[in-house]
Amino acid sequence: MTKSYFEDIAPVTYKGAGSTDPLSFRHYDKDRVVLGKRMEDHLRFAACYWHTFCWNGLDPFGGGTFLRPWFEGGSPMELAHQKADAAFDFFSRLSVPYYCFHDRDVAPEGSTPRESRENFLRMVDVLGAQQQRTGMKLLWGTANLFSHRRFMSGAASNPDPAIFGLAALQVRDAMNATLALGGENYVLWGGREGYETLLNTNLGQELDQLGRFLTMAVEHKHKIGFKGTILIEPKPREPSKHQYDFDTATVYGFLVRYGLEKEVKVNIEANHATLSGHSFEHEIATAGALGLLGSLDMNRGDPQLGWDTDQFPNNVPETAIALYHVLQAGGLGSGGLNFDSKVRRQSIDPADLFHGHIGGMDVCARALLVAEQMILDGQLQQALDARYAGWKTPAGQDILEGRVTLDQLADLALATNVDVAPASGRQEYLENMVNRFTGA
Amino acid sequence: MTKSYFEDIAPVTYKGAGSTDPLSFRHYDKDRVVLGKRMEDHLRFAACYWHTFCWNGLDPFGGGTFLRPWFEGGSPMELAHQKADAAFDFFSRLSVPYYCFHDRDVAPEGSTPRESRENFLRMVDVLGAQQQRTGMKLLWGTANLFSHRRFMSGAASNPDPAIFGLAALQVRDAMNATLALGGENYVLWGGREGYETLLNTNLGQELDQLGRFLTMAVEHKHKIGFKGTILIEPKPREPSKHQYDFDTATVYGFLVRYGLEKEVKVNIEANHATLSGHSFEHEIATAGALGLLGSLDMNRGDPQLGWDTDQFPNNVPETAIALYHVLQAGGLGSGGLNFDSKVRRQSIDPADLFHGHIGGMDVCARALLVAEQMILDGQLQQALDARYAGWKTPAGQDILEGRVTLDQLADLALATNVDVAPASGRQEYLENMVNRFTGA
Amino acid sequence: MTKSYFEDIAPVTYKGAGSTDPLSFRHYDKDRVVLGKRMEDHLRFAACYWHTFCWNGLDPFGGGTFLRPWFEGGSPMELAHQKADAAFDFFSRLSVPYYCFHDRDVAPEGSTPRESRENFLRMVDVLGAQQQRTGMKLLWGTANLFSHRRFMSGAASNPDPAIFGLAALQVRDAMNATLALGGENYVLWGGREGYETLLNTNLGQELDQLGRFLTMAVEHKHKIGFKGTILIEPKPREPSKHQYDFDTATVYGFLVRYGLEKEVKVNIEANHATLSGHSFEHEIATAGALGLLGSLDMNRGDPQLGWDTDQFPNNVPETAIALYHVLQAGGLGSGGLNFDSKVRRQSIDPADLFHGHIGGMDVCARALLVAEQMILDGQLQQALDARYAGWKTPAGQDILEGRVTLDQLADLALATNVDVAPASGRQEYLENMVNRFTGA
Amino acid sequence: MTKSYFEDIAPVTYKGAGSTDPLSFRHYDKDRVVLGKRMEDHLRFAACYWHTFCWNGLDPFGGGTFLRPWFEGGSPMELAHQKADAAFDFFSRLSVPYYCFHDRDVAPEGSTPRESRENFLRMVDVLGAQQQRTGMKLLWGTANLFSHRRFMSGAASNPDPAIFGLAALQVRDAMNATLALGGENYVLWGGREGYETLLNTNLGQELDQLGRFLTMAVEHKHKIGFKGTILIEPKPREPSKHQYDFDTATVYGFLVRYGLEKEVKVNIEANHATLSGHSFEHEIATAGALGLLGSLDMNRGDPQLGWDTDQFPNNVPETAIALYHVLQAGGLGSGGLNFDSKVRRQSIDPADLFHGHIGGMDVCARALLVAEQMILDGQLQQALDARYAGWKTPAGQDILEGRVTLDQLADLALATNVDVAPASGRQEYLENMVNRFTGA
Ligand SMILES: [Co+2]
Ligand SMILES: [Co+2]
Ligand SMILES: [Co+2]
Ligand SMILES: [Co+2]
Ligand SMILES: [Co+2]
Ligand SMILES: [Co+2]
Ligand SMILES: [Co+2]
Ligand SMILES: [Co+2]
Repeated sequence: MTKSYFEDIAPVTYKGAGSTDPLSFRHYDKDRVVLGKRMEDHLRFAACYWHTFCWNGLDPFGGGTFLRPWFEGGSPMELAHQKADAAFDFFSRLSVPYYCFHDRDVAPEGSTPRESRENFLRMVDVLGAQQQRTGMKLLWGTANLFSHRRFMSGAASNPDPAIFGLAALQVRDAMNATLALGGENYVLWGGREGYETLLNTNLGQELDQLGRFLTMAVEHKHKIGFKGTILIEPKPREPSKHQYDFDTATVYGFLVRYGLEKEVKVNIEANHATLSGHSFEHEIATAGALGLLGSLDMNRGDPQLGWDTDQFPNNVPETAIALYHVLQAGGLGSGGLNFDSKVRRQSIDPADLFHGHIGGMDVCARALLVAEQMILDGQLQQALDARYAGWKTPAGQDILEGRVTLDQLADLALATNVDVAPASGRQEYLENMVNRFTGA
Repeated sequence: MTKSYFEDIAPVTYKGAGSTDPLSFRHYDKDRVVLGKRMEDHLRFAACYWHTFCWNGLDPFGGGTFLRPWFEGGSPMELAHQKADAAFDFFSRLSVPYYCFHDRDVAPEGSTPRESRENFLRMVDVLGAQQQRTGMKLLWGTANLFSHRRFMSGAASNPDPAIFGLAALQVRDAMNATLALGGENYVLWGGREGYETLLNTNLGQELDQLGRFLTMAVEHKHKIGFKGTILIEPKPREPSKHQYDFDTATVYGFLVRYGLEKEVKVNIEANHATLSGHSFEHEIATAGALGLLGSLDMNRGDPQLGWDTDQFPNNVPETAIALYHVLQAGGLGSGGLNFDSKVRRQSIDPADLFHGHIGGMDVCARALLVAEQMILDGQLQQALDARYAGWKTPAGQDILEGRVTLDQLADLALATNVDVAPASGRQEYLENMVNRFTGA
Repeated sequence: MTKSYFEDIAPVTYKGAGSTDPLSFRHYDKDRVVLGKRMEDHLRFAACYWHTFCWNGLDPFGGGTFLRPWFEGGSPMELAHQKADAAFDFFSRLSVPYYCFHDRDVAPEGSTPRESRENFLRMVDVLGAQQQRTGMKLLWGTANLFSHRRFMSGAASNPDPAIFGLAALQVRDAMNATLALGGENYVLWGGREGYETLLNTNLGQELDQLGRFLTMAVEHKHKIGFKGTILIEPKPREPSKHQYDFDTATVYGFLVRYGLEKEVKVNIEANHATLSGHSFEHEIATAGALGLLGSLDMNRGDPQLGWDTDQFPNNVPETAIALYHVLQAGGLGSGGLNFDSKVRRQSIDPADLFHGHIGGMDVCARALLVAEQMILDGQLQQALDARYAGWKTPAGQDILEGRVTLDQLADLALATNVDVAPASGRQEYLENMVNRFTGA
Repeated sequence: MTKSYFEDIAPVTYKGAGSTDPLSFRHYDKDRVVLGKRMEDHLRFAACYWHTFCWNGLDPFGGGTFLRPWFEGGSPMELAHQKADAAFDFFSRLSVPYYCFHDRDVAPEGSTPRESRENFLRMVDVLGAQQQRTGMKLLWGTANLFSHRRFMSGAASNPDPAIFGLAALQVRDAMNATLALGGENYVLWGGREGYETLLNTNLGQELDQLGRFLTMAVEHKHKIGFKGTILIEPKPREPSKHQYDFDTATVYGFLVRYGLEKEVKVNIEANHATLSGHSFEHEIATAGALGLLGSLDMNRGDPQLGWDTDQFPNNVPETAIALYHVLQAGGLGSGGLNFDSKVRRQSIDPADLFHGHIGGMDVCARALLVAEQMILDGQLQQALDARYAGWKTPAGQDILEGRVTLDQLADLALATNVDVAPASGRQEYLENMVNRFTGA
């Protein structure tokens, strides 16, 4: 038996805010009770398989920088086993309760669809055994429908229905595997479900194909008795120029168009919010208002960069606002906080993988405590309620419930003949109030 | 009687592509037949009242630069009359068939709601007389619900229902005026229907208010017998940080949520597309696919600037692609091409107003001729049809029409066991083909 | 004597981090010693005249929202006096040591250059008296060369030398006034020193004009014996499409081109850094490396918005990094931290002006304490030194000091014939280390 | 001998604007005389080795899509030979006069520096023979200092001087090879010469390293008698978060700082201009004004995407403005128009490589003809001269030449006491004038 790639790293434990051990948690105290629930049960942290165990550090201008032992030196399936060993070793030492994977992360593409499937099914068994051994749980599974050449023009939105069929094969098997492994959600992310140019794209046709595919996936979920949530992960662009799942509001319209708004929720990624011109909390609050809040990918972008940097969260005030909106929306249900994050390609040491995840988990844990204080204090909510109090009056309710026409309302305003003075929005006052809780 | 501000400008006429007279049209030959319809009837150009007759050149860092005679030297109502004279003088000399206005463009705000209304009603009569005199038609009317202090926190989405009521008054009267003036559409643009910070905003509540307001407007339309189209103009931000009518896809979801998708269409502005991270043709094609294409504001932005520059279109290849998608979607119906455009604040001469509009009209006219050639040639459409031909086969139709399950499709792909080779997207070939028609 | 607009606000004092009084400082404890210097002497806070006392809440889509008593109801000079009273009343109650102004902020434009000048000179005396009375100091003065219509095409970069002359008049008088009032710096910001289109712009000629103007200002400084620093405030765009003082690196090249790099420094605004595609700390570190760090405008932008929002800083971790780089660069010398910030246009109450400034000051004060800890701890600096240690070796020094040619170095690498392994950049480890000090 | 990958493509020839053969030129008529010089000698087109012959279609979310025969099936050096055969076959059929390469494009990395060098030297001989055979010329050579893992933290700006040494080896050899192959320029592009985070970066130190490296390269150029131009290619970011060669103005400051502004020029890429927030013509005009205009990479970006898409130019009006500024600046000297462009990753057929280049060449050729007309017509230049005429007067010259002080100028403006009225900027008029020549 080979030695662990992470053998120098002891299991990470909570050592308190004053800890100077960089391989300890300073805030993530999983059993601490926050608003009546254990911190671990609020946050439901997941680490992802792909960035940490599959990506070799490559970017568009350079090759791999990470020399992981499971990248070469064996057959593809042997390496898949080594990768699984390393992944579960890492997850365990990190003390993260959940993980996530794409089908192609865990098992190699074969030379035919059948061989690919067989590789995957064999590795699903391995994952099951690893889960048994370590106690790890699966937050969500998914299928990679964007890396292989065959999906270069989309999977469900491909101009060729035969490629739609190959996508169906992967999704069927990945959904079945997710069920088998006790996965709590199933995610679809469509990096190639979009277009490069309208000159070669029939946009309406492709939307219908996507609607059909999603409907089939929902029907399959019910057929196999999967109780988890199906999630769409919005992203506006990259790798495609335009992607159909642009943002939460766009996904809402898409779901309603195909009658799926009760069946599917969103997995919101901080970095994708940034790329779509929204704040993370905007996407969360929108999903909350539309009844679509499912799960979060906590990785942030860089505000100066126009691509997905997938960095670990490291700003507590920003993260606290995001988690405040999650709590206000009633929490994440079967979702969790996934790190769809990667260490920088210059961070080539095994320990760097721990620093990234530990930092991210601690930032979220500290942010949760800030959000808890914001809620317990209650003044933010009170200020909001006071601002909209007019809509609780009979006159406000008459409007909202449709008991008054435009003409009636216009005539009433005319009869009153008063130019209503507006009230201060008090933004700076409220921002300062938030800072009371963030340590500022 | 005072002399015309534009007295040095003779009515603008078509003089042919070789004309070097900067105050002539080189491409806009209104009676030329394009795809079976007069150019004028395709383009349905409109000039707007606000940028040209109300804006004084002010920007966030400096005051007015335009010294229009109707800006001062009389009572507000006297100036409103002078402005109307100047506007219709300009429209007539420009030979543009349509115009558009906000209520507050044409009549001054009074000291009470009633006085504001009376000012407006009086000026609507003046507009009617000017239309009679000149033959000008109204493409659309609208109400300004964003400039006055009372709307600083929104109109329909205001936290105070009394301000919602004042908005109702304006919209009722503006709709009635649009009907009275033979307007062919009615537009809503919500520059303050959005938020600056979620700390003082109840997003879900505000969406419901907006849904209610729009429903009331639609009901009013039917009550008064207005046969035109109600249009929402999407814009992602500015002046608000986030605006609820972010883009066409967002508006679609909003309309469906409130049961209005058969009643309301979109007025797409090129500059707003840019600000939302989309191309103009993306917004047009999306609206076409979703059945929402209503009308266009042709003013473009600057790709390096993050705000609404509202410039006249001046790039024929870009405009041709936009109009090609309009034609492919079946045209604009009761909509048209409005110039929600302003000359630069350094363009202070009366003639500059003509140069801006003439340039814009000529670019659109030339672009229409390019789009006509693209359609007559037919190869772009043929290439597209060939690319999606698989979806017309029985196997493709079975999928699209829901006659096959995920399991069946997966099993079929497995049984076939072929890794389908993708076909070239041929983007460069298609782009070159477009350039054959653009003069490149 | 009229009552104070701010009469409900008691002078703001430090009440400790636990204070829940929104009109107290929780971190700005001006006499607290930080790295051997009083907090007040590190931060040298300034409030600005323009946003708080001149701006009426107007934006490109709407008129004023602030109904300040000094906006109307008197002659322009009477209102200027009332404004000065209000401004110094505000500064005093806020307990901010410095202020800043443009000439046109404090005195109205007259009907001729001479009248404008006389208005200004009279108000300079008033400012002097107010400084005497209150103990306020002037961080910097400047001239507004961008709001008036005459400067629509630039001031020093104007195509008309007569307008260059009018700009010279304003700058001469504003520099003299700054000297007279004991100002510690003089700032130039060129919102119109740039262009809208190259079609009407001779870029090289305009750069030469700007170089000449700045040279004249520097010579004037020496002539009048002004000992403060002349500062340029970079901004990439807005209101112009392109501004010549794009960012710190561009200003450096400009200064060297005209031989002024020893005479002029930069005033870096956080929001302008954002607009130029840089982080605030990038601009600070660049200025530090190039010897140009002068002063800071602390107002931030919104990462989703493409225009200058001029918000108060409210994120401690971000601000701490900025101040860490200031301290590493040796501090600001005669510069300070100016709030070129405005409350949101919905924040219409007098108290909102206090909330904005108090929040900003507290965030900077808390950030300074974080930066102090980062420096005292020393590990960040040690990690940096270790990373570059090779450059301190003889081989490294030989290269840096030019004792080795490309050929020699190439031949040495070839002779050594070793592919040097890179070392981890440890970004996540370092980011986590920073969070130890930020309260995360 | 194996058959050509491009055997179905006949050499591309000019067939006139009406040609419908997609594999012909419609505008690039190389012997046509434009402003006294053959079109070929104006444009000096180059195709690049890397995107077309090395890139396999990979992006951050997926693997290769191009199945080029020279990608596998032989030893690295055998494949390098096959690639060279294919490249020169392609260049010849395309009828492009120049090509460009990086050292690592043409020869494989070996297991040691020495082996890498030997591979390269051997392939340089092959390139020489191919040039002989085909008549192709080398526009510029360069060294790839960003793809290999060793350069992950920079080459000349690396924290480790030993890596600086390995960079020196590559650049020395690439410069020598460029000389040997008759190359007309030598380019440096520093994709990793920048940083990801200031936490691990000593910005001032790295700038000094870069300055030193460039100085050594310039000295080496003179030592070996290379008469071509050394060019820096600015880019603001990607792959690095910040790159030191941000834009032309930044490079200018850098060159002056290290005394190299007479020795080095810039190679401006359209896509990099976009990423830095500038228009392409801005970068060209800036380089012209600063005396730095060297060569152009014509590949454009996508205005909605925040990364380098490297697309072929396809908009004639935009390209015409760029070439107009090149002509106004006196042309490119030893530079040319390089296509640092790639076909979309869905464009997988051999013919697509031709469509991309043919379209780009035709757009540039047509744009050159437009620019010629703009110059021959002369009205644009006349309007510009008239606008700045005041600076040619004695009063204007006195200012520009430093014969007047700020005080004198201020006193003169005061004595004159006239508020100078500004003149219209006439932007729309000028934009329309441009469109007269673009086919609009
Ligand atoms: Co992502
Ligand atoms: Co994600
Ligand atoms: Co607009
Ligand atoms: Co509009
Ligand atoms: Co600013
Ligand atoms: Co500022
Ligand atoms: Co590039
Ligand atoms: Co390039």
